[in-house]
Amino acid sequence: MEDVIKRALELVVPSKEEIEIAKKAEEELKRRLDDALEDYPMLEYRFLGSYARNTWLRGNLEIDVFILFPEDTPMEELEKIGLEIGKAVVDEYELRYAAHPYVHGKVLGVEVDVVPCYKLKSPDKIKSAVDRTPFHHDWLKDRIKGKENDVRLLKQFLKANGIYGAEYKVRGFSGYLCELLVVFYGSFLDVVKNAVKWRRDTVIDVPNGKVYRKKGGSFFVVDPVDPKRNVAANLSLDNLAKFVQLCRDFLKRPSLDFFLSKEFDLDEDAFRRENRVVVVVAFEKPNIVEDNLYPQLEKACRVVVNNTREFQPLRFGFTADDRCYLIFEFGIRELSRFYKHMGPIFEDEENVERFLKRNEKVFIENGRFWAFKERMHVKPNEAVADVIKKNWQGMGKDVGEKLREGFEIYVGEDVLKIESKEFRKKLAEVLCIKRPSS
Amino acid sequence: MEDVIKRALELVVPSKEEIEIAKKAEEELKRRLDDALEDYPMLEYRFLGSYARNTWLRGNLEIDVFILFPEDTPMEELEKIGLEIGKAVVDEYELRYAAHPYVHGKVLGVEVDVVPCYKLKSPDKIKSAVDRTPFHHDWLKDRIKGKENDVRLLKQFLKANGIYGAEYKVRGFSGYLCELLVVFYGSFLDVVKNAVKWRRDTVIDVPNGKVYRKKGGSFFVVDPVDPKRNVAANLSLDNLAKFVQLCRDFLKRPSLDFFLSKEFDLDEDAFRRENRVVVVVAFEKPNIVEDNLYPQLEKACRVVVNNTREFQPLRFGFTADDRCYLIFEFGIRELSRFYKHMGPIFEDEENVERFLKRNEKVFIENGRFWAFKERMHVKPNEAVADVIKKNWQGMGKDVGEKLREGFEIYVGEDVLKIESKEFRKKLAEVLCIKRPSS
Repeated sequence: MEDVIKRALELVVPSKEEIEIAKKAEEELKRRLDDALEDYPMLEYRFLGSYARNTWLRGNLEIDVFILFPEDTPMEELEKIGLEIGKAVVDEYELRYAAHPYVHGKVLGVEVDVVPCYKLKSPDKIKSAVDRTPFHHDWLKDRIKGKENDVRLLKQFLKANGIYGAEYKVRGFSGYLCELLVVFYGSFLDVVKNAVKWRRDTVIDVPNGKVYRKKGGSFFVVDPVDPKRNVAANLSLDNLAKFVQLCRDFLKRPSLDFFLSKEFDLDEDAFRRENRVVVVVAFEKPNIVEDNLYPQLEKACRVVVNNTREFQPLRFGFTADDRCYLIFEFGIRELSRFYKHMGPIFEDEENVERFLKRNEKVFIENGRFWAFKERMHVKPNEAVADVIKKNWQGMGKDVGEKLREGFEIYVGEDVLKIESKEFRKKLAEVLCIKRPSS
Repeated sequence: MEDVIKRALELVVPSKEEIEIAKKAEEELKRRLDDALEDYPMLEYRFLGSYARNTWLRGNLEIDVFILFPEDTPMEELEKIGLEIGKAVVDEYELRYAAHPYVHGKVLGVEVDVVPCYKLKSPDKIKSAVDRTPFHHDWLKDRIKGKENDVRLLKQFLKANGIYGAEYKVRGFSGYLCELLVVFYGSFLDVVKNAVKWRRDTVIDVPNGKVYRKKGGSFFVVDPVDPKRNVAANLSLDNLAKFVQLCRDFLKRPSLDFFLSKEFDLDEDAFRRENRVVVVVAFEKPNIVEDNLYPQLEKACRVVVNNTREFQPLRFGFTADDRCYLIFEFGIRELSRFYKHMGPIFEDEENVERFLKRNEKVFIENGRFWAFKERMHVKPNEAVADVIKKNWQGMGKDVGEKLREGFEIYVGEDVLKIESKEFRKKLAEVLCIKRPSS
């Protein structure tokens, strides 16, 4: 284990050169900020986030600088001046959107975010999530001292296994959550050793230094800066489970592998051989951010699944690149055209009469009337297409609109015609037929 | 209605010629019996059954004569002498089997049964069902006077609709049950008018002249000769339901049709068009009587159905002529090779470890481990064949033995290769695709 950790550290701790570059960029950025803020004496700036706390992952340098506005600044002014300053201090700027828009760009080739926020006295008055960031930094900055590399180990452990990041596409662990866990438990290895006992209703009460269970609750990591807030709110149950199992596996057989991203691909031979009952819906991607797109894709999948129950949906998945892909696997390849429709017991004369009028192919079984009826669809792809045509309105605003405009359906081996790598990886994941990619 | 009944009577009341022939046969039979019994002074004979009570159906004349033995006669002797006398008094004799063997044959061309039984003082000492017959006759013979033709109407009404006869193949109404019902309610039409309100738990208490319901019980017609005995014991729930519905239909739209057997056939065009998911098992008929064969066929079907649940069995049926036929209709034409096998919740470390060792293609869903597994059979005919190969021992002694020796499976359109009329009628019934036969 010691050896594994030692070698993992080499992966995650930034090189001297990277630190050198960062320092220079930081100094240059400060100069530019001082210049830019000369006209705004009521504003100040702060370096926050993983760069400021020295917890960024080797090769993933990004400097976050926050422009703090007085509490009484109107929101529009904050946004306007915030963007203005951002544009002034970075090269190759682009606008990005979180709670409100901010500027992303580069300084001496280093990635930089310039985020405007309010300067508040207490975190219970925050107007948007970014206003909390200065408080997070204040809480962490001394407590994390000496544990920076443990944070880096945890981040890389998560990243290599696809569960680092709180964005909806990932639904994993945020950087802030990693830092809190290392502070709370003391080290990377202590986080791992404790996580193996986590349950879905575990509460990690950071401000009070306690761990307990809340029956019927969700996994909850209390934000020391705002105790009502769950820092793990975006962590999905399944990613929590995945992490817990990874921790068990790692403790049983420590290996550097746990820190290395495993590139994989669809095993086409297995796919052809197994002849899975797969239906894929492909359509044009709406022009919206991922954190908006992915929930809509999931919603669309759930609507399809809930309306194709008679084909025994087994699993679903979704992803997007230029197009969007919804993936469904079913347990039934083909139903009979006929099914049994239940009628009244024979004693119920009134309903028997009505049933006989409304149905053909009637028979009696176990003292009850039944009728054979014909279903619309005998194959799952027919049902999927029909559900989308009838229910696109319940599939998210933007995704629904695109589905209304049109979609393609792929079945069985035909899905291999889709070349998208994103799609193939997701398909491999859904069907459990991955192949290490060369 | 009156007119319908009038015309129905023409169908059911024996012609003068038939009565004439019957009388002559009866006289001849009596002569032969007197001769044959000369050597057995302790024996006597009695004419019982529908001929004796003048309730036989036109064209269905059969004379039942019972040889009454003293109570202390050993069973073997009763059987031996009974058969000897039977053989002596009829032409073209053959042995038939009910509770014990008896002789069937002809006298002046009329069908005759010669049945040995014990002469008892009370029906609660009976050794086998036939010993009850003299008591039934004694109870009925005066009560049925003047209502003979109502009995005939009821019998024909049942016969035309396939529910006359208590034998296992039919599971309908026995002749004795018809007579009791007519005595109890007063006439054919009174039976029909009352039957529309029968329920599955109705008790018709003939000796006490009452009708009531016994919650959780079965349809029960109390034998006035033996109040513990249910005269309708062999009437199936579904044939009870069928009769009740026929009575409702008849009262709503009286028609001679209800008294005319409707010959029907399989509608081959509909069969091809509907493409039903049908599996038929055909095999050699074991050499046993129908009342023994049919329960075994039903049992075999139930074992198949109970072991092919994943293909959603819809209906089954069975019949036999030279061969036996088991018919199954399924709701699923083809399953995927893969299904989801449930594992433990992620918190259950011990069972998770075991599950991971035992399974490949493992994934996490809703906080629980699952695995994709492969099933043996993806089509219902494969499953049916496999169930029979593995479970023939639970399919009745004789039927199971024949199935062990071998069987053929027919699927879809191939079942039309089976030419048996019995089979085709049963198939038409099971699938509800009858065609009036020309």
